[in-house]
Amino acid sequence: MKQTLVLLAAAAVATTAGLAIAGGHGGNPAVKARQAHMQLYQHNLGILGGMAKGEIDYDAAAAQAAADNLAALTSLNQRSYWAPGTSRDDLGEETRALPAIWAEGSKAGEIGGQLQEAAAELASVAGMDRESLGPALGPVGQACQACHKEYRQSDN
Amino acid sequence: MKQTLVLLAAAAVATTAGLAIAGGHGGNPAVKARQAHMQLYQHNLGILGGMAKGEIDYDAAAAQAAADNLAALTSLNQRSYWAPGTSRDDLGEETRALPAIWAEGSKAGEIGGQLQEAAAELASVAGMDRESLGPALGPVGQACQACHKEYRQSDN
Repeated sequence: MKQTLVLLAAAAVATTAGLAIAGGHGGNPAVKARQAHMQLYQHNLGILGGMAKGEIDYDAAAAQAAADNLAALTSLNQRSYWAPGTSRDDLGEETRALPAIWAEGSKAGEIGGQLQEAAAELASVAGMDRESLGPALGPVGQACQACHKEYRQSDN
Repeated sequence: MKQTLVLLAAAAVATTAGLAIAGGHGGNPAVKARQAHMQLYQHNLGILGGMAKGEIDYDAAAAQAAADNLAALTSLNQRSYWAPGTSRDDLGEETRALPAIWAEGSKAGEIGGQLQEAAAELASVAGMDRESLGPALGPVGQACQACHKEYRQSDN
């Protein structure tokens, strides 16, 4: 009885989750997860970058929320979606992730740590004023670019 | 000089973020962000549900990581992507989000709070053993379904 309930609950979750994503069928699950993760970086950085550039009115609460989101996202455990065997060499154009990410001497994890630090620093000032955003976004952008330059296929 | 640096930094971030997403062009940004968020729910729930059902070998660290991720995701501030004017009535088939989400008396936020609680509870047991997963996944699935039943277009 208990086992049945467990299976029903698990099945319900899997079904619910599976049905939740419009257009979410097909594709490598790890790739989809990391692209979703990047999409959420983009969303929150878009708000902060837009405010820094004056394209979006500065709103302290919204800036803080976006920066807190970004910091929380950088702190997620991404091991399950940077799975070995899911590089561009393995999967083709579905992903731009280069095999160097998984190679010996890879600095991808280290750069991830730099992004995490930069995002935490950004979150510590984002709610203060618009002028604080730009300087704090700099190191975030540097970490993004450092990883993309080395570990992301550029011609796609 | 300082202002130029700020703009350069902001532009670099926006460009980096913008280029980061393969196939991320077009579409409503709020819709893309919430679908990405759901994708990450799905990813982490897929791991936990798979372990509960015995389709994936139970791994305490991986289960804990997925549950911690899920709890962190439920705690993100989603206000910027559940933006008014982005329902199915507003945007068409791009989204299944019904206008009732934004209507007076909406319980979407309340259900979100239930999901957050259920995910925190799940994270408190996920690293213990496989048997703990199913019962803790139940309330998570219930919150998913409660929101989808009421607030998501079903025929898509």
